[in-house]
Amino acid sequence: EIATWFLSEITSEQKLKNKRILITAGGTQEAIDPVRLIVNRSSGKMGYALAKAAQQQGAQVTLVSTVPALPVPTGVEVIYVQSAQEMRQAVLKTYPQVDAVIMAAAVADYRVKNPAPTKIKKHSETLTLELVKNPDILKELGAQKEQQVLVGFAAETHDLQHYAQQKLIQKNLDLLVANDVSRKDIGFGSNDNEVILFQPEQAPILVAKADKAAIAQQILAVLASKLS
Amino acid sequence: EIATWFLSEITSEQKLKNKRILITAGGTQEAIDPVRLIVNRSSGKMGYALAKAAQQQGAQVTLVSTVPALPVPTGVEVIYVQSAQEMRQAVLKTYPQVDAVIMAAAVADYRVKNPAPTKIKKHSETLTLELVKNPDILKELGAQKEQQVLVGFAAETHDLQHYAQQKLIQKNLDLLVANDVSRKDIGFGSNDNEVILFQPEQAPILVAKADKAAIAQQILAVLASKLS
Repeated sequence: EIATWFLSEITSEQKLKNKRILITAGGTQEAIDPVRLIVNRSSGKMGYALAKAAQQQGAQVTLVSTVPALPVPTGVEVIYVQSAQEMRQAVLKTYPQVDAVIMAAAVADYRVKNPAPTKIKKHSETLTLELVKNPDILKELGAQKEQQVLVGFAAETHDLQHYAQQKLIQKNLDLLVANDVSRKDIGFGSNDNEVILFQPEQAPILVAKADKAAIAQQILAVLASKLS
Repeated sequence: EIATWFLSEITSEQKLKNKRILITAGGTQEAIDPVRLIVNRSSGKMGYALAKAAQQQGAQVTLVSTVPALPVPTGVEVIYVQSAQEMRQAVLKTYPQVDAVIMAAAVADYRVKNPAPTKIKKHSETLTLELVKNPDILKELGAQKEQQVLVGFAAETHDLQHYAQQKLIQKNLDLLVANDVSRKDIGFGSNDNEVILFQPEQAPILVAKADKAAIAQQILAVLASKLS
């Protein structure tokens, strides 16, 4: 029941001309103490590929990023953040003014309840970390949605279709980009990806394995059709 | 009581000719589940600067690294690892054959007791992570030391001198390189560093702020004096 798309020609058409698009990239970093963090394996490459392609198609792109090491695409405005709470603030501030949001960042579901102000010494044999849930940024955006087209990502290791369909509905998304991160050849850190696009009331679409720039083109093609 | 060293000229002298040196770099990564990890802020830059400088001074360098993103210095053999347990294996295997070890990597003191085989879903409001102590690689090396000169690092946010002196003795080190990671202008992720060198029965030496390549030269100068 999944249709496969063959990649269309990379286009320089200005399909997103003058559209304001907010894109998040990277994984949020949640402090345990000044030295240790909880992170996730997101490299930020997919978000940066989307930002570059959207800008080339004429969009005004704001990138909220946790990855200062990656080069910023020409013409893209960037805001650096670390934690989920910082990302939430940056995203909510920009949200009212944009035509679309692509939440490509991997936002930590949990943060440490009480981060230590100084480095924790290793006196004890065991250590218990209490985590509390982070705000669900995507759900908040879905709940407050007005003119914005809202695109989410799902990285799953199992039951991908089930979780993706659920997330699409529960978070009031217009498009969900899902990928199977149990595969070693794609996704986290890789230059390639293979994703399935889920949209309300439509059959899922498989975008076959390709480099992240090509995958970005396909995602933006669907987004553009929803913006016009 | 801390003497300051002025940086000597960068030298191309082969002070480490034919010495076999094992260097570790980066921070170990401890899995929570296939997507989430506990890491520390170490970028690996100090270890890579040491590897490059040691190789240029004639050493045969093996680099045990957690940072595949950094370019490997010419002529340096590299072994990639992720967790502290993997790093321990790689280091212990190479240890008997080397003249010196520089443990520049930040090894996680704790790992997750039972990493989840699939992505943890965010059903509950809170989550408790049970951590257990990792093997203390540096202490093991100190205990097994024969011909090797053993160099450790200490990153502290407070009471730096106290912890550094303690670590030097307890781990049977020949040299301990300590830096204050509460300072934003040096250390983690930065291209600069400022360190204090601790040696048994000697007054600590401050190596004033400089780029990591220059700091590496100073550390290697002390190491070379112990190897000849």
